Amino acid sequence: MELPKAETFQAVRRASVELVAGLSDADMTAQSMPDASPAKWHLAHTTWFFETFILSEFLPDYVCYHEKFKFLFNSYYESVGPQLLRSKRGLITRPSRDEILDYRAYVDKHILSLLKAWPENKTDLHFLLALGLNHEQQHQELLLTDMLHLFAQNPLKPAYKIDKIKPFEKQEMYWLACDNNIYPIGHDGNGFSYDNETPRHEVLLRAFEIASCLITNNEWLGFMGAGGYRNPQFWLSDGWAMLQKENWQQPLYWLQHEGQWYEMTLNGLQVLDLNAPVRHISYFEADAYARWAGVRLPTEFEWEVAMTQHKLEQRQGFDQVWQWTSSPYQAYPGYQIASGAVGEYNGKFMCNQFVLRGSSSATAKNHSRITYRNFFYPHQRWQYTGLRLAR
Amino acid sequence: MELPKAETFQAVRRASVELVAGLSDADMTAQSMPDASPAKWHLAHTTWFFETFILSEFLPDYVCYHEKFKFLFNSYYESVGPQLLRSKRGLITRPSRDEILDYRAYVDKHILSLLKAWPENKTDLHFLLALGLNHEQQHQELLLTDMLHLFAQNPLKPAYKIDKIKPFEKQEMYWLACDNNIYPIGHDGNGFSYDNETPRHEVLLRAFEIASCLITNNEWLGFMGAGGYRNPQFWLSDGWAMLQKENWQQPLYWLQHEGQWYEMTLNGLQVLDLNAPVRHISYFEADAYARWAGVRLPTEFEWEVAMTQHKLEQRQGFDQVWQWTSSPYQAYPGYQIASGAVGEYNGKFMCNQFVLRGSSSATAKNHSRITYRNFFYPHQRWQYTGLRLAR
Amino acid sequence: MELPKAETFQAVRRASVELVAGLSDADMTAQSMPDASPAKWHLAHTTWFFETFILSEFLPDYVCYHEKFKFLFNSYYESVGPQLLRSKRGLITRPSRDEILDYRAYVDKHILSLLKAWPENKTDLHFLLALGLNHEQQHQELLLTDMLHLFAQNPLKPAYKIDKIKPFEKQEMYWLACDNNIYPIGHDGNGFSYDNETPRHEVLLRAFEIASCLITNNEWLGFMGAGGYRNPQFWLSDGWAMLQKENWQQPLYWLQHEGQWYEMTLNGLQVLDLNAPVRHISYFEADAYARWAGVRLPTEFEWEVAMTQHKLEQRQGFDQVWQWTSSPYQAYPGYQIASGAVGEYNGKFMCNQFVLRGSSSATAKNHSRITYRNFFYPHQRWQYTGLRLAR
Amino acid sequence: MELPKAETFQAVRRASVELVAGLSDADMTAQSMPDASPAKWHLAHTTWFFETFILSEFLPDYVCYHEKFKFLFNSYYESVGPQLLRSKRGLITRPSRDEILDYRAYVDKHILSLLKAWPENKTDLHFLLALGLNHEQQHQELLLTDMLHLFAQNPLKPAYKIDKIKPFEKQEMYWLACDNNIYPIGHDGNGFSYDNETPRHEVLLRAFEIASCLITNNEWLGFMGAGGYRNPQFWLSDGWAMLQKENWQQPLYWLQHEGQWYEMTLNGLQVLDLNAPVRHISYFEADAYARWAGVRLPTEFEWEVAMTQHKLEQRQGFDQVWQWTSSPYQAYPGYQIASGAVGEYNGKFMCNQFVLRGSSSATAKNHSRITYRNFFYPHQRWQYTGLRLAR
Repeated sequence: MELPKAETFQAVRRASVELVAGLSDADMTAQSMPDASPAKWHLAHTTWFFETFILSEFLPDYVCYHEKFKFLFNSYYESVGPQLLRSKRGLITRPSRDEILDYRAYVDKHILSLLKAWPENKTDLHFLLALGLNHEQQHQELLLTDMLHLFAQNPLKPAYKIDKIKPFEKQEMYWLACDNNIYPIGHDGNGFSYDNETPRHEVLLRAFEIASCLITNNEWLGFMGAGGYRNPQFWLSDGWAMLQKENWQQPLYWLQHEGQWYEMTLNGLQVLDLNAPVRHISYFEADAYARWAGVRLPTEFEWEVAMTQHKLEQRQGFDQVWQWTSSPYQAYPGYQIASGAVGEYNGKFMCNQFVLRGSSSATAKNHSRITYRNFFYPHQRWQYTGLRLAR
Repeated sequence: MELPKAETFQAVRRASVELVAGLSDADMTAQSMPDASPAKWHLAHTTWFFETFILSEFLPDYVCYHEKFKFLFNSYYESVGPQLLRSKRGLITRPSRDEILDYRAYVDKHILSLLKAWPENKTDLHFLLALGLNHEQQHQELLLTDMLHLFAQNPLKPAYKIDKIKPFEKQEMYWLACDNNIYPIGHDGNGFSYDNETPRHEVLLRAFEIASCLITNNEWLGFMGAGGYRNPQFWLSDGWAMLQKENWQQPLYWLQHEGQWYEMTLNGLQVLDLNAPVRHISYFEADAYARWAGVRLPTEFEWEVAMTQHKLEQRQGFDQVWQWTSSPYQAYPGYQIASGAVGEYNGKFMCNQFVLRGSSSATAKNHSRITYRNFFYPHQRWQYTGLRLAR
Repeated sequence: MELPKAETFQAVRRASVELVAGLSDADMTAQSMPDASPAKWHLAHTTWFFETFILSEFLPDYVCYHEKFKFLFNSYYESVGPQLLRSKRGLITRPSRDEILDYRAYVDKHILSLLKAWPENKTDLHFLLALGLNHEQQHQELLLTDMLHLFAQNPLKPAYKIDKIKPFEKQEMYWLACDNNIYPIGHDGNGFSYDNETPRHEVLLRAFEIASCLITNNEWLGFMGAGGYRNPQFWLSDGWAMLQKENWQQPLYWLQHEGQWYEMTLNGLQVLDLNAPVRHISYFEADAYARWAGVRLPTEFEWEVAMTQHKLEQRQGFDQVWQWTSSPYQAYPGYQIASGAVGEYNGKFMCNQFVLRGSSSATAKNHSRITYRNFFYPHQRWQYTGLRLAR
Repeated sequence: MELPKAETFQAVRRASVELVAGLSDADMTAQSMPDASPAKWHLAHTTWFFETFILSEFLPDYVCYHEKFKFLFNSYYESVGPQLLRSKRGLITRPSRDEILDYRAYVDKHILSLLKAWPENKTDLHFLLALGLNHEQQHQELLLTDMLHLFAQNPLKPAYKIDKIKPFEKQEMYWLACDNNIYPIGHDGNGFSYDNETPRHEVLLRAFEIASCLITNNEWLGFMGAGGYRNPQFWLSDGWAMLQKENWQQPLYWLQHEGQWYEMTLNGLQVLDLNAPVRHISYFEADAYARWAGVRLPTEFEWEVAMTQHKLEQRQGFDQVWQWTSSPYQAYPGYQIASGAVGEYNGKFMCNQFVLRGSSSATAKNHSRITYRNFFYPHQRWQYTGLRLAR
């Protein structure tokens, strides 16, 4: 892997700031639930990441921007030190938006001067810098999902942005077949990947078929109409308990008004597009849909193999919604947790979560690949999550 | 009671806006706990009060500023309609600070034109307008206590304002005696009062003595040093349970650093002034202190009688801290709840709370009187609350 | 006060055991909620009381029955030592019913031998022994209310006993008047009383009227039919919150089946007797009823004065239901907490509770008097609680 | 599969009753936590299983023992109907122990007469009867673990039984190697298995080694001494959160007294046997131990292959403790949920749980096999759970 270029660094960093162009200091400070973080916190935490793992390690005499930021903007790195309680992030009204931007500029300046002086043959910085940029891109998506969640709580239903919205076209679904075989799974080492995509290894799969399309809002209405949210036989036991506790009756951001279905989006409240992929559903809902339909969700291995073999066009493999797979998030055989604090990046979350594959309309450009493993808890719904069937 | 003058109205309304001069939109939006509200919400809710109870009732053809504000800024008036869940107030990043100020200007303009046109002999507006202004002053104090609570959660310990701080002088305490007698209690009807201060009625009191001074921080340190927070014998059963649950070991905003005690204040973290009245203590703590000291808290009637008889100078009766009394907050004999929605102002809270008398350093000027009854739950600590002993 | 006689002691102690005659070891062990205690625990705790406060203090060389019982059967006496967590009482399946009865016999034997040898002129035992017996009688009532609560949770609706049930007759209500005056309140020192009934003192009351009868089930149905449980205007704010949280729609033990109302009782599920006093209602419900009826609850002083003056026949003053008053449970002027552990009997609960007067059908005979002050939290409903109106 | 013989049926049913020989009605009624059930409930629920799935289906004119038992003793079969809230099982003091035994006798009698009359060539009863017996055996183990949990809450630390205890001998650990290969996994259809052990299918495994022995108490003390419970780096993120919330510092039933470690067991409190396998640990603890030791837990496939190949003697493979594997509990490829209510037996729990292999000292005889998949949530500790390492 090469050392990321200064222009790449600047472009990724700039993209984060562009995301908050239309937001007020208040918008950027509020936290709508413990799972979500304030936009300001995302901007600061990604900066803290570069400061902590790169500048403090590699730049002699580097002086931290602010001693307390170490505590305020550490997410979950126990090896680095204690952290502000996650549920309290929305109370940090100071530093202000402007101070955070100043913090970003300070760290960027030092990173750029470090890059300039870095000897070409010294490679230990390469991975960390790439990791920092990929980390920043992950937070760009989280920033969007978190803003959407925040605005959805507001009875005024504010729009984050105003796009011209193009309706989806109806797609014909067909089944894509893959044979019984031993397949390679995981990243091949060309270019950046997270450690959880490695090591590349072989997996034995039975023959299977996977749907060419994602499940649409229209199909989801069929599930709802058939009592999908009222019949426990379609549901995992934990899912049914959650449905009852939270009174789930439709996807997270749907609401009905005078017989018409709407969806809260980054463009505010919109009439539901029936041909669009359903989104903001939990694993429990995706799984219940598949049982109701008499089929099942694919494993993450089936997904990866099918995408590789069938070269599904962009529209249905990526860029719409993250696709729940039936695979619990686990280490690949031979997986080694990196030493040091960055070892906490992925490995310690390999429990109770499920893998999602693909990418969503909120994913940063150049931040998706066929081996990418996203993961969330099975009850979580605020990400752009949908499903594709298999059998 | 006369109709409040336009200048009075404007002065009170202006005072609220002046309180947020140094605050950002973010500062004004965050909510640090369900008991507290965002500054922006205080500015809007007091405006909603004038709009709902005066403009909508008395100004023909008045057009509401925004339909949704009825829901967003209703505090607890069930008769008016449903309300945003109290714990969600901090998620309302929109309307912005500027929109709220515009809302205030819109309502102020209409109130002033209503006042101008109001016939002198039509008195039904008088009480409601005075109530609205007193209500606004109450929220001015809440705005301060809520900002302090918010900033106290922030590890940066921001200062709300920067005052030159004058240390307190040591006072000599003496006991003020009052005889066994029947005393009049409650407001006599000259000028404004809340309904909970009426009707004026007679109360039979046994002879008692009340302290001339408030308990100081130094005295509180004595209580702490004597194991006051560790010995259940001084505590009400509910208080001891709360102490254990919340791990109380000192007043809410105290913290110790390298042997020195500090207190978080609106001026940021300050060295503890030993001669200042102790503040930010719960009823449970006040009561435990009194038991430890071998005496008791005064009843609200004793307080009112003693203040009347002994004409305690401002400094010890008012303007420092609200003083816990041992009186549960109850209706005076013959109390009638007002009809309509304003009937919900006071009466429905007459349960499980205790009366505080006096006023605090955060109370609006001209907003205290000897018959004033403030009230909070016995576990609450974020107000400027202290104590005076009796026996 | 005289030293209670051995026969009195034996009679009270025997009465407790008779209460459990029809119960299994399992019935006597289960705890249906933290507010309630197992029957076995009541039998043991009352015994522990005699052992701890009398035998250990007055009987030289007394050997405790079992070292661990000190921990298991201490209710809330912090001065005596730590206690089993209240919510865990139902897990103590051992000691068995028989062991508890053996424990009772052991302690009884020692108390009786102590009584025999006690010099007539030594009076320090008198109050403690009388307190122990009154304490036991209080637990006799609690044992019944707790068994009823337990059996009410069981879909089989078991009957604790099988009585021949006599229907109530319809009563005509009239108002009893009392004048404006200074009245003596509290116990006069003849015979036993709890410390919370003292000191006797004078209270100034305005003229008032009090209802001759308790509110009946039939009247309560009128309240329900008028939307009493659906209209917030009748409710204290804390009461309305509780109603919503617990989904209150009728008194605790009522249930409707095919249009007929039933009540779960110690005799199992019974058709609701419309003329019987309503029971198992919270203070919040009693207060809401009174507001709906356009009147109010009496204060505990009004109740005591009216009962004294009008000598209400047993049936309506006592032996039916405890009657909620509007008086918060507070110390009488001059009240002194007893020194030592028995000081924890009453005083530390004088906060957030309301006084009930009279007695109920579950109260032990000879355990009621006109100055008696019972007290519960305003949300509690599992006692035999009802109401009488005043104005 | 053959129809289980009448003698087998009787033996299994008798074994359940023998387990409660030394228990009182109270012991059998209490529920120490929602995860556990009362012994009486276990006896009744297993009986309900035969009644619901066999007698009601196959015995014409069968009359249910008691209509309400359908509700009381249904565990989680939504298709059968609603159930008593799980956390309320301990409140069902009636039916009594004797009534439950009578219920058992009633159902047994009918099953035996059904068996007698069953035509040899009609096979549809075979699996259900075998399932009912295996189900009963599972509950026999649960009854023991639940009694232990209940007695462990009691400060008297009662013993469920009094055995002569034989100390464990020290074992030498060695690594057992298995090659990279494709292995068959799952039940081959000879004899009874649960549906979750099927279909038998092939799995590709990389070469691995597995420990010949279980981790002992002595080794666990090493982990504790090395700060295992204090260092987040060994822990999954969810595990570390749980450790902090529950203040885990040692296995569930360990306690230290005057420097000596004890363990609460079915034989009461016992000095810890250092050579015995550690037990009553969560998945989180097992996983943390493995990370601390620089190795990992085996997958369930590795476990099954290693046991098959190396024919580990009984003592280390079975009959000690259930062994946590790193495999989330998931369906095998091609798994089909059975139709009807028995389909709820296993499939709906395939989420958020981990597979354990082997069997424990509390497992019923003849109730273990190499393909058996037990499963619990990763935080649960009250089963006989331990671990074996792999690498």
